[in-house]
Amino acid sequence: MVQYVGVENLIQLIRSVGVETFLTELATYVEEDFRRWPEFDKTPRVASHSRDGVIELMPTADDALYSFKYVNGHPRNTRKGLQTVTAFGVLSDVQSGYPLMLSEMTLLTALRTAATSAVAARCLARPNSRVMAIIGLGAQSEFQATAFKALCGITHLRVYDVESAATEKFCRNMQTSGLDITVANSSQDAVSGADIITTVTADKLKATILSDNMIGAGVHINAVGGDCPGKTELQAALLNRGRVFVEYPEQTRIEGEIQQMPQDFPVTELWQVMTGDVQGRRSEQDITIFDSVGFATEDFSALRYLKDKILGTDFYTEIDLVAEPEDPRNLFGLLNQV
Amino acid sequence: MVQYVGVENLIQLIRSVGVETFLTELATYVEEDFRRWPEFDKTPRVASHSRDGVIELMPTADDALYSFKYVNGHPRNTRKGLQTVTAFGVLSDVQSGYPLMLSEMTLLTALRTAATSAVAARCLARPNSRVMAIIGLGAQSEFQATAFKALCGITHLRVYDVESAATEKFCRNMQTSGLDITVANSSQDAVSGADIITTVTADKLKATILSDNMIGAGVHINAVGGDCPGKTELQAALLNRGRVFVEYPEQTRIEGEIQQMPQDFPVTELWQVMTGDVQGRRSEQDITIFDSVGFATEDFSALRYLKDKILGTDFYTEIDLVAEPEDPRNLFGLLNQV
Repeated sequence: MVQYVGVENLIQLIRSVGVETFLTELATYVEEDFRRWPEFDKTPRVASHSRDGVIELMPTADDALYSFKYVNGHPRNTRKGLQTVTAFGVLSDVQSGYPLMLSEMTLLTALRTAATSAVAARCLARPNSRVMAIIGLGAQSEFQATAFKALCGITHLRVYDVESAATEKFCRNMQTSGLDITVANSSQDAVSGADIITTVTADKLKATILSDNMIGAGVHINAVGGDCPGKTELQAALLNRGRVFVEYPEQTRIEGEIQQMPQDFPVTELWQVMTGDVQGRRSEQDITIFDSVGFATEDFSALRYLKDKILGTDFYTEIDLVAEPEDPRNLFGLLNQV
Repeated sequence: MVQYVGVENLIQLIRSVGVETFLTELATYVEEDFRRWPEFDKTPRVASHSRDGVIELMPTADDALYSFKYVNGHPRNTRKGLQTVTAFGVLSDVQSGYPLMLSEMTLLTALRTAATSAVAARCLARPNSRVMAIIGLGAQSEFQATAFKALCGITHLRVYDVESAATEKFCRNMQTSGLDITVANSSQDAVSGADIITTVTADKLKATILSDNMIGAGVHINAVGGDCPGKTELQAALLNRGRVFVEYPEQTRIEGEIQQMPQDFPVTELWQVMTGDVQGRRSEQDITIFDSVGFATEDFSALRYLKDKILGTDFYTEIDLVAEPEDPRNLFGLLNQV
């Protein structure tokens, strides 16, 4: 039998643990796996493009576990009341090839993306960072806010979205978060005085959410929204001025902010900062940029955490996804029994 | 909600329909999709190799539906009482990217492989074929026998396996099939007088199950067992003597019998025979060889058939694999509700 964590069970699990604790524990798994980056079998995601969007498969594996995530991106879905992004994933045993756990990953992806952002900021932002700007208050924004509060000590948010409905939703959801929230009247206004700037807009086009002249020395930019070909948020001049950190260069050069830059544009791999092989922030004046597109190992970490977390709980069911004939060579016999 | 067809429901569905009818209906979907081959988005499978085996993802799509199959291949699994191959798959809506149906595919793969073999034989074997040899009586053998009876009019089997336990299992399962079965004492003995020869051994090595001198004129060879790098069943001389038909050349040149041959070894694509663009069998004397490795479109056909077949039945359940927040941008709100 395969363990199954559906949406309802995951919600109940997160509520019982608490979102901040869940994000904090998840972050330790994400960080652990980044630190042993060379152990993973890595490949850019396999995409199937259509007129309205894309469906992607994101596999990865270490010696013991294999995972893949199915994820779609359909920008027009919201018009139909559907989500732009939905996802689910599977964790398997490498030795037998058998699937172990199937989980919803729409929520889990939002959580691992926020946890990864916070893990990156912990080694790239100034340690005394307290004020974060968030530009773009869509589905991912509250997860980012919560992760940065729990993991980076952010106490004050300066937030902006072009749609007031999104801003209202964000403020409502964050009402009891304990964060001090200032609603800004422009992106420019939002970033003023921020130690960390998170851009997480949803436009599927080359937008300039942050231009070079908006950014002062010492800032860490957490660029989450530019995550597929044709979709960027930062001005090229800003990328040239700061130091850019990425997950998996082969994928980020296609999907990230640096798709605007030449193929040899210098980047630093985040895992090397985590292992201490490469210095992250070098001075109080550095502008550091995490060009985040999301990578398969982060889903692996999330599934690995979830698998450990549900152990001995009621937050999963079991499903008969794998046939189990008594004699493995007698598959046909399953059809004959009466 | 996503439709879920687990092992138990699939078994019940097949029993209620009857295996022969299931295979026959499935074959019409397989054939239909082969005939519109150029409409599919095709890519070789994405493999993650490890010491003990391989885990593969096999995606494909047309304008309306997307499918992928997860399948492993672990030859040593049987020693642990596990199956060499297990599989599951998903059918999705291309327009929204949302998954529609999740199904077990261990049984379904065995069925679609047999249906595809029979569909190929219908346009490649002599129409008056009545006698089939089967070499290799593992998990796939009974499915092949049943499909060829139902779809090609085979009435007589000549079977052989190196292990007597496999032969006994096969004969027990086929007892009430209505097929006349002769147990041969060697591969050579099995193929004598056969119109069609199915090779479906499980060895993960370059074996010579059929050599050139064993094969007379007019025979159709259904080569199912050579299906991954390093695993073949037919002698190169035999491939040179017959005409070789394949599913997706890019994949078959890596995984099929023709991995032994030069990269420009001439092959005919099965779909072109099905559409009538290319002649299959040209004479009573032709040796035709279907070098089958299994391709993603066949899984697509199987899932498409299953989706239609469960409509209005009790042979599926629904699972909450996709989060459905009322406001798609308010994913975080799911965690706040009490």
